[in-house]
Amino acid sequence: MSESADVLYEVRDRTAIITLNIPKRLNALNGEQYLQLGKFVERANEEEDTVATIIQSTGRFFSAGANFADKKLQEIDAETLFSHEYWLERFVARNVWLTNVFNNHKKILVAAVNGPCIGLSTGLLLLCDLVYVNDINKFYLLAPFANLGLVAEGASSATLFMRLGWSKASEALLLAKPISGQDCYNVGLINKHYEGKFKTTEEFNQQVFKDIYDAFENLHEDSIFQNKQLLKQQRDVYINNANSNEVQRGLGKWLEGVPQTRFAQLAMKEVKHKL
Amino acid sequence: MSESADVLYEVRDRTAIITLNIPKRLNALNGEQYLQLGKFVERANEEEDTVATIIQSTGRFFSAGANFADKKLQEIDAETLFSHEYWLERFVARNVWLTNVFNNHKKILVAAVNGPCIGLSTGLLLLCDLVYVNDINKFYLLAPFANLGLVAEGASSATLFMRLGWSKASEALLLAKPISGQDCYNVGLINKHYEGKFKTTEEFNQQVFKDIYDAFENLHEDSIFQNKQLLKQQRDVYINNANSNEVQRGLGKWLEGVPQTRFAQLAMKEVKHKL
Amino acid sequence: MSESADVLYEVRDRTAIITLNIPKRLNALNGEQYLQLGKFVERANEEEDTVATIIQSTGRFFSAGANFADKKLQEIDAETLFSHEYWLERFVARNVWLTNVFNNHKKILVAAVNGPCIGLSTGLLLLCDLVYVNDINKFYLLAPFANLGLVAEGASSATLFMRLGWSKASEALLLAKPISGQDCYNVGLINKHYEGKFKTTEEFNQQVFKDIYDAFENLHEDSIFQNKQLLKQQRDVYINNANSNEVQRGLGKWLEGVPQTRFAQLAMKEVKHKL
Amino acid sequence: MSESADVLYEVRDRTAIITLNIPKRLNALNGEQYLQLGKFVERANEEEDTVATIIQSTGRFFSAGANFADKKLQEIDAETLFSHEYWLERFVARNVWLTNVFNNHKKILVAAVNGPCIGLSTGLLLLCDLVYVNDINKFYLLAPFANLGLVAEGASSATLFMRLGWSKASEALLLAKPISGQDCYNVGLINKHYEGKFKTTEEFNQQVFKDIYDAFENLHEDSIFQNKQLLKQQRDVYINNANSNEVQRGLGKWLEGVPQTRFAQLAMKEVKHKL
Amino acid sequence: MSESADVLYEVRDRTAIITLNIPKRLNALNGEQYLQLGKFVERANEEEDTVATIIQSTGRFFSAGANFADKKLQEIDAETLFSHEYWLERFVARNVWLTNVFNNHKKILVAAVNGPCIGLSTGLLLLCDLVYVNDINKFYLLAPFANLGLVAEGASSATLFMRLGWSKASEALLLAKPISGQDCYNVGLINKHYEGKFKTTEEFNQQVFKDIYDAFENLHEDSIFQNKQLLKQQRDVYINNANSNEVQRGLGKWLEGVPQTRFAQLAMKEVKHKL
Amino acid sequence: MSESADVLYEVRDRTAIITLNIPKRLNALNGEQYLQLGKFVERANEEEDTVATIIQSTGRFFSAGANFADKKLQEIDAETLFSHEYWLERFVARNVWLTNVFNNHKKILVAAVNGPCIGLSTGLLLLCDLVYVNDINKFYLLAPFANLGLVAEGASSATLFMRLGWSKASEALLLAKPISGQDCYNVGLINKHYEGKFKTTEEFNQQVFKDIYDAFENLHEDSIFQNKQLLKQQRDVYINNANSNEVQRGLGKWLEGVPQTRFAQLAMKEVKHKL
Repeated sequence: MSESADVLYEVRDRTAIITLNIPKRLNALNGEQYLQLGKFVERANEEEDTVATIIQSTGRFFSAGANFADKKLQEIDAETLFSHEYWLERFVARNVWLTNVFNNHKKILVAAVNGPCIGLSTGLLLLCDLVYVNDINKFYLLAPFANLGLVAEGASSATLFMRLGWSKASEALLLAKPISGQDCYNVGLINKHYEGKFKTTEEFNQQVFKDIYDAFENLHEDSIFQNKQLLKQQRDVYINNANSNEVQRGLGKWLEGVPQTRFAQLAMKEVKHKL
Repeated sequence: MSESADVLYEVRDRTAIITLNIPKRLNALNGEQYLQLGKFVERANEEEDTVATIIQSTGRFFSAGANFADKKLQEIDAETLFSHEYWLERFVARNVWLTNVFNNHKKILVAAVNGPCIGLSTGLLLLCDLVYVNDINKFYLLAPFANLGLVAEGASSATLFMRLGWSKASEALLLAKPISGQDCYNVGLINKHYEGKFKTTEEFNQQVFKDIYDAFENLHEDSIFQNKQLLKQQRDVYINNANSNEVQRGLGKWLEGVPQTRFAQLAMKEVKHKL
Repeated sequence: MSESADVLYEVRDRTAIITLNIPKRLNALNGEQYLQLGKFVERANEEEDTVATIIQSTGRFFSAGANFADKKLQEIDAETLFSHEYWLERFVARNVWLTNVFNNHKKILVAAVNGPCIGLSTGLLLLCDLVYVNDINKFYLLAPFANLGLVAEGASSATLFMRLGWSKASEALLLAKPISGQDCYNVGLINKHYEGKFKTTEEFNQQVFKDIYDAFENLHEDSIFQNKQLLKQQRDVYINNANSNEVQRGLGKWLEGVPQTRFAQLAMKEVKHKL
Repeated sequence: MSESADVLYEVRDRTAIITLNIPKRLNALNGEQYLQLGKFVERANEEEDTVATIIQSTGRFFSAGANFADKKLQEIDAETLFSHEYWLERFVARNVWLTNVFNNHKKILVAAVNGPCIGLSTGLLLLCDLVYVNDINKFYLLAPFANLGLVAEGASSATLFMRLGWSKASEALLLAKPISGQDCYNVGLINKHYEGKFKTTEEFNQQVFKDIYDAFENLHEDSIFQNKQLLKQQRDVYINNANSNEVQRGLGKWLEGVPQTRFAQLAMKEVKHKL
Repeated sequence: MSESADVLYEVRDRTAIITLNIPKRLNALNGEQYLQLGKFVERANEEEDTVATIIQSTGRFFSAGANFADKKLQEIDAETLFSHEYWLERFVARNVWLTNVFNNHKKILVAAVNGPCIGLSTGLLLLCDLVYVNDINKFYLLAPFANLGLVAEGASSATLFMRLGWSKASEALLLAKPISGQDCYNVGLINKHYEGKFKTTEEFNQQVFKDIYDAFENLHEDSIFQNKQLLKQQRDVYINNANSNEVQRGLGKWLEGVPQTRFAQLAMKEVKHKL
Repeated sequence: MSESADVLYEVRDRTAIITLNIPKRLNALNGEQYLQLGKFVERANEEEDTVATIIQSTGRFFSAGANFADKKLQEIDAETLFSHEYWLERFVARNVWLTNVFNNHKKILVAAVNGPCIGLSTGLLLLCDLVYVNDINKFYLLAPFANLGLVAEGASSATLFMRLGWSKASEALLLAKPISGQDCYNVGLINKHYEGKFKTTEEFNQQVFKDIYDAFENLHEDSIFQNKQLLKQQRDVYINNANSNEVQRGLGKWLEGVPQTRFAQLAMKEVKHKL
């Protein structure tokens, strides 16, 4: 195991395994933890002998998205809270970079999805090549940006459209509705689910690891990597275009103060929270 | 309610509702009625306070497509019937404009689909963001252009491919086959269906209205609109390209007299009608 | 019937029918047979009166892909086996051309799929407009390129992504896993299946022929062909781009000697064979 | 010569020659004359034996654009003047169709440019393959849309960008400035100019005809046509996209009444006229 | 005038004028100054009544690019100097945002170019619609990224290709060669130059302002803005794609420490400096 | 120097130098020689320490294109001469591969152009990043495909459009006219010319080598290579699309026998030869 308690890194059998390990917070990630996640994905990209990189979690949720609770927005002075400097660093830089790190990953990128996925983490999940789910009845995707006064993140305006289709992507982004595991399965997002047969996330993670390893064990590595590059050509321009556009629009929202107000309203129960 | 008996316009709870109201003709629309539909969609686009625009119908069909019966083609003198002037106005202008009006709509565009949809109306339906169907067993899409000696309309050569996939789009356009509600649901076109539980179209329309309103009620409007713009970037060039190409090819057919002959044959039962 | 015993050509009721007829080899095709297949598709393209072209098979498999057994690689002298000359002719030319011949076919291109489809033949199958399957439980797609030390062929890096979606395309190409008939059906690749009700491939082929003929019989031919051109605009650049890229990467593999080694290992059972 | 006095059609030595013949009005074209021009380009497209189509003029101007003087806008009743019906027919249909007719022309499309070119005619000129100019000192392009309260027409938002480059296209469209013949020559728009050595437009037209004929006389026709199709793939999507977008935005302007007001102001000399 | 001494902001005659005002440093900008520049461009975008935004300078250079001298890299502790945190904020966020702010500017964006332009500022200059130069003999573009161990910035990998063409863009980026004013003029980048007739930058700036104002004074504003949106569709995807790609590759360079080393070497004269 | 007398290979000062050395035939290349050229470009791509690859020539011409004289077409038996097998190997495979080898070259690709360039070699020249010409008055490009009954080769339908612009590309491909060195220079294709000051090709080659080496000597190699990848994204899809399309259309011509007839006619002086 590795240097962070919140996000873990391990290499086993030519597979890099990155684990979100904040089960008490449903794997909601604060800025530092997203940074750590991205660094681990970069590190996995550079591992000499790995073929696949698995992103997995602990506890009930895959990831509840960005955790704003740790550094309470209300404790930041107002000038800072509406400044370019603050949001360029915390929002623009982080989102552009994370999206690129996931999108440009050379290895097979696998998500072992134990439970719901929300927000920016949904964008990152949708940049994975393979999606395995333990129990589709306990899984949903939520892109709650319109509820928070934000816009699509993590190139999800591109990936939701590509992976769920026009109708479900509209439902996810325009209505901020959760997309059920069953719907995700129907439209082909989920490679395999296990009918919830694993009682613990650890067992499930172990099985996904085993399935992936068994699958690539006898394959020619460079063929895999070249096939990934060929597949990437089908989508790359759309993802990069979305990435650049989304952060610009999102920054506008933070500078207007929209999400700050929404978070305050949500805290005050003025607006019904969907999360 | 509003100024046309055939197509109705109403604003309720930040929602513009446009109703096709020619149930006796299965909501087949003649040229004036399509024009009215387009004008209402334009008007909904400019409403100050609305978030969504719902297209709904009355009776059994969502829309049976273009109604050529009102102005019987055989009653038009032959020279006119094969003239550029006639078809530029009635075909090219109308189709390009309607397609653009639907494609560029800023609000959430919702179709409340009570029954089958045919022809140009299929093209317009496929430009809606969200598709709700009362009973998928009573719904089908039909793009009968190859049966009428025409070609794809309403950018359906792009939207069928994007929303149904290559195989079903080919079946719809090359074989002019109806695509069943079940197939539409399987490929992800339909956001939700109600298992036919609403016995009247009015009850169904009411429920869709309620579902949409409940969904967007607490969301941040501008986030919704910006998300729509982001999603639109995934598809816009393809739709505009199809729009320009389709009308040119379609015009060629009218100038050759192909559909005129087909309509005559269909009237004479020489060719088996699929509608 | 026509000039080759291995691949048959026939025109019946405005339909060209091309039959893979090497059931003993599960319709694995050697270089000459792929060439014959391509020539027949070209010929069907030029038939004056046909509307559709059906590719069908005999026996249990649709096509087991490239047959390397006929001309055993080990019998070729080493210098030739790693030469540009050899692989430019046998690999680059054949693959680019076959992909183009299928992709640019003007008529409705139909696959009557009696059983599994493997390798380059999968690429060709995925360039067909309509896919009919007798029994989805006996059908799978296999793109075993990563197992053979090769890369995607027949523009399958584009078509798998378009027709199966990102997740299943990744599974097919990165993990070289078979994609089951059920999965293919779920994501919309298969237009129709017959629940395996035809006991012989001949009966099945006969039914597909009948279904296609009944479907286009009364349609306007030129409308069909123009609709195909319109649909083709949604995908053409991606397919041509993939075609050019795939052969270059694949040639690199043959010149490095990777697949030659893999074939030898497979023969020696050193590497577990997935086929 | 042929059926219209204002626009002439002739076939000579495998070349269709279309002549704008309204020198007194500087070849400004009213609606009927643009229609006639488009019909002749269509006819040239279908000529069995021609290789090239030349668009040429008489008098001092190549074409001064749309002639609104013939049917004075002020004489039309107000309701009509702001109606969808009026502008769908006279603006949307005409522009989409003309743009498509020029863009999809199969033969070598040549402009023999005797003098300035303005407005929609600029869009059409920029869709020609080859541009010959008698005297670059007497030639300019003018896209006066921003002066008239309109937007780019004839796909000129795409073709100006492609053929003049970003800077000059911006100058032409954003500042509505004439682009001089010298500038057009510098950026490569003009294939050849004759240093104004022809004293009459007729002599010039004769020379262009001769140059074109000499050039293609010994070439293989089908090679030419296929090369044109290959070149067209570099630009086609952009032109179709611009076509669909431009008419929608332009229609909006007419419905708002902007150009009607501008024309009135120009007539009243309130706004300095650039034409 | 406005709140910063280094970068000035002024609105005059419906024109926002932003002035780089650090002539002693040849208008090399440090991080804060680039931020100020971007904020002023954002502010100009929101001005209610302006039509154009002019970026102009003082002194001899338009902008010498990023000024690393102010905050000497060697004074930063090593850990920070190679950290994600440092470069995400100072490099990724700034570049993505600035590029977007310039690219998405709604008004006519004009550069009044008094002298050479280097580095990131070149990227920004190339996102301007109109480029006016006082003396092309005293102007050059320099994209010295390969000299500094960096990669293209400001979407210049897209804009150099589009505006200078393949050959000159390669020279600029692969060889890090200055592109002379004459070459820039030849390929159409420069709208107008004044043969160096203005002896002071102030006079030149005044003339550009006057030329722009005279040009747009009588035009319809909304037509201009819509024309800009139409032109933007020709290039937008390429610029956003480049933006996202460039920052990811550039960040990699900073994390490897390449530019830090190059700057040190340049300071030590080990590597010949091209600036 | 290296293994072929006709095409030479050398590495000097981190530069791979490939020399066409058949001055007596004006560097017209037969099939084997094109193959050798491609192999050397591949080898240069894999050189560990080089930064640039220069393609240069000897004698008066850069390359007179494909040399069909060596293996006289009339000596081949008729069946072979119209067979798929013959042209798949000699035309399709060679052209697709050569185009890819040039297009995907990782290093700076430089053409030192001593004289005219014709045919397929023009396609390859246009895939070079930098083009240096000794004397533009002695240089021209010729794409004589329409004269030979062929179509564009070497992705020249894409590169001519991108590098010469729409007008000159049309002249080159539709009229098969030579494009003069002056015209190539005007549109920005030529990075630098030397006013013909070098009296021998050797001196000229030596100077280009020196200029290139001086230019990259102090640059950071990986920055150069990454900049090339970024630039390549602006054009790659268009080139791959053209590559796949061109060979398919070209093959059709050979199978019809068109170029065979043209070559015979040219030999018989029936058709005026432009070369």
